[in-house]
Amino acid sequence: MKKFFNPHSVAIFGSMKEGKTGSDLVRNITEGGFKGKVYPISHTGDQIFGLNIKKDFKDLDIDLAVIAIPSQFIPSILEKLGNKGVRSVIIISAGFSEVGNIKGEERIREIAKKYNMRIIGPNCAGIMNTEYNLFASIEVRALKGETAFITQSGALGGVVLMMAEEMGFGFSKFISYGNRCDVDEADLIKYLQDDYQTKVIAVYIEGLKDGRKFLAQAKKTLPKKPIIVIKSGKSKAGMRATSSHTGSLAGEDRIYDAAFKQSGILRVDNVREMFDLSRGLIYYQKIKGNKIAIVTNSGGPAVMTTDKLEELGLAVPEPSPSLKDRLKTSLPSNISLRNPFDLLAYGSAENFAFVCEEIASEYDAIIAIFVPTAYMDSTKIAKALGKVKDKIKKPIFASFMAGRLVKKGIEELNSYGIPNYGTGERCAKVIQKIVLYTSNLEGTKDA
Amino acid sequence: MKKFFNPHSVAIFGSMKEGKTGSDLVRNITEGGFKGKVYPISHTGDQIFGLNIKKDFKDLDIDLAVIAIPSQFIPSILEKLGNKGVRSVIIISAGFSEVGNIKGEERIREIAKKYNMRIIGPNCAGIMNTEYNLFASIEVRALKGETAFITQSGALGGVVLMMAEEMGFGFSKFISYGNRCDVDEADLIKYLQDDYQTKVIAVYIEGLKDGRKFLAQAKKTLPKKPIIVIKSGKSKAGMRATSSHTGSLAGEDRIYDAAFKQSGILRVDNVREMFDLSRGLIYYQKIKGNKIAIVTNSGGPAVMTTDKLEELGLAVPEPSPSLKDRLKTSLPSNISLRNPFDLLAYGSAENFAFVCEEIASEYDAIIAIFVPTAYMDSTKIAKALGKVKDKIKKPIFASFMAGRLVKKGIEELNSYGIPNYGTGERCAKVIQKIVLYTSNLEGTKDA
Repeated sequence: MKKFFNPHSVAIFGSMKEGKTGSDLVRNITEGGFKGKVYPISHTGDQIFGLNIKKDFKDLDIDLAVIAIPSQFIPSILEKLGNKGVRSVIIISAGFSEVGNIKGEERIREIAKKYNMRIIGPNCAGIMNTEYNLFASIEVRALKGETAFITQSGALGGVVLMMAEEMGFGFSKFISYGNRCDVDEADLIKYLQDDYQTKVIAVYIEGLKDGRKFLAQAKKTLPKKPIIVIKSGKSKAGMRATSSHTGSLAGEDRIYDAAFKQSGILRVDNVREMFDLSRGLIYYQKIKGNKIAIVTNSGGPAVMTTDKLEELGLAVPEPSPSLKDRLKTSLPSNISLRNPFDLLAYGSAENFAFVCEEIASEYDAIIAIFVPTAYMDSTKIAKALGKVKDKIKKPIFASFMAGRLVKKGIEELNSYGIPNYGTGERCAKVIQKIVLYTSNLEGTKDA
Repeated sequence: MKKFFNPHSVAIFGSMKEGKTGSDLVRNITEGGFKGKVYPISHTGDQIFGLNIKKDFKDLDIDLAVIAIPSQFIPSILEKLGNKGVRSVIIISAGFSEVGNIKGEERIREIAKKYNMRIIGPNCAGIMNTEYNLFASIEVRALKGETAFITQSGALGGVVLMMAEEMGFGFSKFISYGNRCDVDEADLIKYLQDDYQTKVIAVYIEGLKDGRKFLAQAKKTLPKKPIIVIKSGKSKAGMRATSSHTGSLAGEDRIYDAAFKQSGILRVDNVREMFDLSRGLIYYQKIKGNKIAIVTNSGGPAVMTTDKLEELGLAVPEPSPSLKDRLKTSLPSNISLRNPFDLLAYGSAENFAFVCEEIASEYDAIIAIFVPTAYMDSTKIAKALGKVKDKIKKPIFASFMAGRLVKKGIEELNSYGIPNYGTGERCAKVIQKIVLYTSNLEGTKDA
């Protein structure tokens, strides 16, 4: 598997005309700053992006082959690569099981077996290793980050990459594995388990071919890093759609759901929740209990957050009488000290810091909600929270709400390692999953 | 009520020092381009934003008074205004029932009654009428639009305005009514029912003082325009928080929920859903059935959308055999025609337009999902959808996914009156509510 992600040389097979997949691949690899050898291969010869297009690959030393030629020509190329000793191949080309060509896919699987070759694909969008500047993919290049993303749907992978780019969210690895004729999710998770650049593994699947293998691997990996799953194909029509599209059988969703829960995999409903949870887990891998405090300068959003926390089975308990007394001594009298701690519209940076520090011992995590009025400065509040975070050693999540008015404040929060979410409800969802992950881990230790 | 929104003259009572509420109000009103008279009133005299600050208001002709002075001085000002015949007063100042000062609030209510005066507030963020350039509020000025937003929480109102600004989403009216000592949601809905600038009424509430009045008014208004409600304070801790913050009693959430459903009010869970549904309703007030088609160039997102549609009780049925035959004749053979109609990655503008036009007779609404690969043009697809929309007379919703790659395409969609959503699941939620609103209306007619 290592040669997929850290090859010394990559050969690209496909049309090198502008706008064609082969050309896009070479472009992405060279523009992406790959340091190894790049060999564009096509019978047309000529040059592309300053590289000679090779007509023949007999004498080339190839670690990784990326194939984007019509499906009927692929078996003979694979035989030649196998004979040469190439062991890592990505097949971008479609035209296999997803359009009913089961035999064609069976054939390439057999060739792979014969040569002890590993194949990612066919019908996939390729892979990226940002640490190594390897962008062997037709999708936009990911930024560097600590989340690895594995996706069965190439198109969804593209969407995720574009959304990530807008947010400035990065990835350690990106893998679109398409029809998984050979390498599957479990193989990839196994590889990522020991990849030090990866802190969180996120997976989009529509269905599994080998559920047992997947779950067994997940159980091994979960004590080391969290696994987030988006699983679509829940409904009947949805299942019909998945089986028509990557040639996989979706299976009963509730069976998947139970298996995920039992093994400790964190299931989310959609891509945004995947991003939210990944960001949360990069900052805080553990939250040791379910008692959550909300410190706010704004009633409405705090109420909505409280609702969401309780709906998710977390607690928003009042502080102890002695803590209440301590708080009273240093705060204006009209402030509500029942949790949510509502500092009212003009709650100052000092108020926020004071309350967070005092209450930390009684809660497992804190959500700080801040809504500025039109002419208020958000960076002061952010700095105060950042400083108190280092002292209290409890996770602080922020929801600074109000677009451009809090933009600088959010940058400041990031610099202190405090994740910010557009709403407190989104914080709540993230916290719930991290609490779950933590308690699952504790369970494993006890057993 | 009309003088609140279309006054010829506005008097502002409060401190006119920079950064104080009185000054912020005068600034928002003058910078907002209000065409009537503006009278800043404070015992300090002097000038502000080129206006003379009046020490006395005896001789002024005032349609609307906006008050931001400490609560203890308010009753005497109200008496004077009442004597002068001022009938519309907004009280921004806090310090009433929300901090336990029930008597103070009772007193201003009595004064209002005595003079037949209407009061919005106290403890509110003010009102806006974008049509009339009136921004009698401490919040950022809203853009012009067709949604009226009524909010019990001023802070949440601020959040909504800032989110709206980022999205380019506009409002017809904005009203933060705080403790509603006099004017309440029902009064405001009644006014907005006949406001021709308002197509959709959206309300954020934590609890109602007079549920019967609200529901009776909603029943009258709903046949004319849709009402969207965000109701927070669902959980126990959430209720505790609401009652501590605007001095209202939250009450049992499930009773509210049942009442909303029965009357046909469209409840949403959060602010984003409110925006999504408002935008949908502005374009399409009716969807006459629950049969939804998905036309896509991308399998994964289509599956997730299908799941969501079915989860919400909508149908994603296959086309009739004869329709399938018609489609087959003009499309590549590997395209899935079972709904989702999956045109595959290189599905063209012509493919999109052709399928939408052919299937329109068998479906009640269409979701078009488009995910470009890195070097694809989204405006062509948008134009094709825009043109076909005029022909088929069925609602088309779009989900063009991929950040900057589809930005121009989304602008193009907007110019054709097609709402775009970041995910197909969000389209699904919007469609479900519009179907519900439509069937409620039909129910009303039958009865």
